[in-house]
Amino acid sequence: MNFKGQHLLSVKDINLDLISELFNVADSMRIYATRQKVSRVLEGAVLGNMFFEPSTRTRVSFGCAFNLLGGEVRETTGLSNSALAKGESLYDTAQVLSGYSDIIAMRHPDPGSVAEFATGSRVPVINGGDGANEHPTQALLDLFTIHKELASQGKNIQDLSLTLLGDLKHGRTVHSLCQLLALYRNLKIQLISPEALSMPAHYVDLLTDAGHQVEVGNCLQQGLPTANVIYQTRIQEERFSTQEEANNYRGYFRLNKRIYSEHCQPGAVIMHPLPRDSRNDANELDNDLNTEPGLAIFRQTDNGVLVRMALFACILGVENQLKQYERDVNWFTGLNNRSE
Amino acid sequence: MNFKGQHLLSVKDINLDLISELFNVADSMRIYATRQKVSRVLEGAVLGNMFFEPSTRTRVSFGCAFNLLGGEVRETTGLSNSALAKGESLYDTAQVLSGYSDIIAMRHPDPGSVAEFATGSRVPVINGGDGANEHPTQALLDLFTIHKELASQGKNIQDLSLTLLGDLKHGRTVHSLCQLLALYRNLKIQLISPEALSMPAHYVDLLTDAGHQVEVGNCLQQGLPTANVIYQTRIQEERFSTQEEANNYRGYFRLNKRIYSEHCQPGAVIMHPLPRDSRNDANELDNDLNTEPGLAIFRQTDNGVLVRMALFACILGVENQLKQYERDVNWFTGLNNRSE
Amino acid sequence: MNFKGQHLLSVKDINLDLISELFNVADSMRIYATRQKVSRVLEGAVLGNMFFEPSTRTRVSFGCAFNLLGGEVRETTGLSNSALAKGESLYDTAQVLSGYSDIIAMRHPDPGSVAEFATGSRVPVINGGDGANEHPTQALLDLFTIHKELASQGKNIQDLSLTLLGDLKHGRTVHSLCQLLALYRNLKIQLISPEALSMPAHYVDLLTDAGHQVEVGNCLQQGLPTANVIYQTRIQEERFSTQEEANNYRGYFRLNKRIYSEHCQPGAVIMHPLPRDSRNDANELDNDLNTEPGLAIFRQTDNGVLVRMALFACILGVENQLKQYERDVNWFTGLNNRSE
Repeated sequence: MNFKGQHLLSVKDINLDLISELFNVADSMRIYATRQKVSRVLEGAVLGNMFFEPSTRTRVSFGCAFNLLGGEVRETTGLSNSALAKGESLYDTAQVLSGYSDIIAMRHPDPGSVAEFATGSRVPVINGGDGANEHPTQALLDLFTIHKELASQGKNIQDLSLTLLGDLKHGRTVHSLCQLLALYRNLKIQLISPEALSMPAHYVDLLTDAGHQVEVGNCLQQGLPTANVIYQTRIQEERFSTQEEANNYRGYFRLNKRIYSEHCQPGAVIMHPLPRDSRNDANELDNDLNTEPGLAIFRQTDNGVLVRMALFACILGVENQLKQYERDVNWFTGLNNRSE
Repeated sequence: MNFKGQHLLSVKDINLDLISELFNVADSMRIYATRQKVSRVLEGAVLGNMFFEPSTRTRVSFGCAFNLLGGEVRETTGLSNSALAKGESLYDTAQVLSGYSDIIAMRHPDPGSVAEFATGSRVPVINGGDGANEHPTQALLDLFTIHKELASQGKNIQDLSLTLLGDLKHGRTVHSLCQLLALYRNLKIQLISPEALSMPAHYVDLLTDAGHQVEVGNCLQQGLPTANVIYQTRIQEERFSTQEEANNYRGYFRLNKRIYSEHCQPGAVIMHPLPRDSRNDANELDNDLNTEPGLAIFRQTDNGVLVRMALFACILGVENQLKQYERDVNWFTGLNNRSE
Repeated sequence: MNFKGQHLLSVKDINLDLISELFNVADSMRIYATRQKVSRVLEGAVLGNMFFEPSTRTRVSFGCAFNLLGGEVRETTGLSNSALAKGESLYDTAQVLSGYSDIIAMRHPDPGSVAEFATGSRVPVINGGDGANEHPTQALLDLFTIHKELASQGKNIQDLSLTLLGDLKHGRTVHSLCQLLALYRNLKIQLISPEALSMPAHYVDLLTDAGHQVEVGNCLQQGLPTANVIYQTRIQEERFSTQEEANNYRGYFRLNKRIYSEHCQPGAVIMHPLPRDSRNDANELDNDLNTEPGLAIFRQTDNGVLVRMALFACILGVENQLKQYERDVNWFTGLNNRSE
């Protein structure tokens, strides 16, 4: 089993063999993403970058990844203008758009919509996020980041002690990540959230059944000392059932330099799905962590390009032809401080 | 007379020689559109894909067609954000934008706007739809589809028995198609619509004067048995003068598998300008026709790419250089079930 | 000092050496912009064309300029959809987006925003306009146009007699142009506006201190006879403090063929930042000037492509490699009437 010619609709489609294949290819993409070399392996191919829900970051990441392989990108950036708004079925839209493209990345606000779209598509479809349901490329880039961050410390995935922190009830990204982590065995996983926003039992069971050492708690300090990777997500106050409970936790799950220094292991890795809310009243990662070497949030988004390049290459079956279409970079690259 | 260096503003600019030239080139585009080969003949050229009215399907079709010839696409996707909204004349906009592009495809909500724009453009302009007025590339792809569908049955255009079905009063696409059909002689054409939505006399006269055998009626079954091509358009209930009349026709012009099997010739071709409204209360082509081999609606949109590629190539004078810039396709193409 | 690897955030970053370097390179871009040749020097590079404020003209000009060097463009076209609207800091946005691109052009409604963004960017950033603050590429293309228009009359910059005309109080473009002009010595500059919309004293002092011969006035005819270049900007009536004053000037600053013939030197150059409002009640350049050879407004926007190509080439350090990546143009170019 491999990615060639397949859709990527759900993390449920992923197994350890696919992860291994994908991450190896992602590693080989680094020289192109950091502009040490150019590869034109997909010159002449067209990506349909169909974002029926607005997004800058993910949309541009997909498009850039395809450009870096030499391909062209046609895109759309909203629902209201589209034929979908005139009652066209996702099946019809897919039939039409797949006549224009070699591969399609699609985001849509409705859960299940991308899978429905895929039934009408004559080319492979990658789910770029379907509402509250799935965002598999985010889960893959998160897992890839965990691998690379551990490796940079001379560790591997079996050394992982991961703390998921924040709103674990609603976060699509942490749910998808848990599904991927369930493919492994005997990891240490701490699930730290306000009680009202705790991880759904289904996912706790999934991790426990996989043989992981799972700890559940509601105290920030509880999850920090044992973790070598901390994955922070946003807490929105309106998500609490009462204002009193919201008040109890106000500012409490905000990770900053003081808390990090006091409670975390030296060099502990900090991840976040981004965007982080940097307004004063937000419960997010503090900007005073920006100079902390453990802050991996921008390495994480850089990894998104690698993983998406790898997905395009594997699905279109060109992962072994990159060198053949390689060229030197002839322009100035100020990218030396990019994550390596 | 040929397309080289010309605007395409109206179907009135078209004659049989141009159609013959264009359709021959469109045929030669199929190997590129189906990714059997890549051609980079327009590498370095820029299309200004100026959609001052939102559109996904037509905009992406134009952009994809240009990419498939190796060119780049710059585009805009709405009116409100543009200088036009600040009182800039179409002449000025054209002067400016034509300084950026080698060719421009343009859609705009106002009838006549694209022709006005063309007076200020220093590069060829293709009308991508100017309100209720014209949409010449749609008419050309419709006519091309009729040619190809007949050919696949061993017939040619003189064997055509065409039924136009639905709202023939307001449909820009059927009006433009009639103007192209008026270039031919002695075809069988049935115009079937509710009386309130019948084809304007001008177009009926145009077809009659061209020597076609024209039949006008308001009964669905009337137009079906004799047709080898059926062109269905949408009926919107609000278009009737009274609700009573709307009620009379409710659901009546909906073509589905039962009606098709009962009344149509085996293999009769079904076309539609798309999008079709697939909501339950819509008077459109039923989804149960999706498996019918005669359903040509997605071959029709695929043909749109061929026709637009051919237009770009002929207008930019590269139609004889495609082979010279040809390369092998080195990636997986899941496009084997594309229309051939 | 040169452009290589630098941001371009403000005209304050510019000196005469940089102008000389840039304009020489811009001259060398003309054969590519007029499609006499193609250069693929940036094939494989990606421009992040980040317009967090809508714009067609400037956005497409940047994108086209990058395409004409062989590079790819990823872009965004509005603020509301973006992570910035979710409280993401400009620093974070820059960290993320600079991981996708080799260079970024950015427009944003807030003064100072692009400079703030640049602090987080790992690649060079070009300011494409930050609200009322700066629009340095417009100032550069204006100055380049002045140079070229004078040269076409056998003159050089020291022969300049420039009249800035219209709303000199609010016009971002004329303010930036004044800052560039302050790099020169002993030019003739007339500042003609209604009193309520006169040039801020700061800029008058800047020009005077640079040793220019500055004349200030409020009478249209006053500025015209001595000028060999006239730079007209828009006057919006709501900008006057009282309706009476607005009435005094209504239509008064509208330059048309009659006024031009009566008061201007033969061949006097007319510039405008565009778009010009061509509605009947607008105080703008009249359309009856369209056939006047001195009307340079479209040569001005054409020059924008040259200047932006030159900026990309100089910042990315490929300005000496253009020939090496040069190819013949194999398609029809109807661009013979482009400005040469």
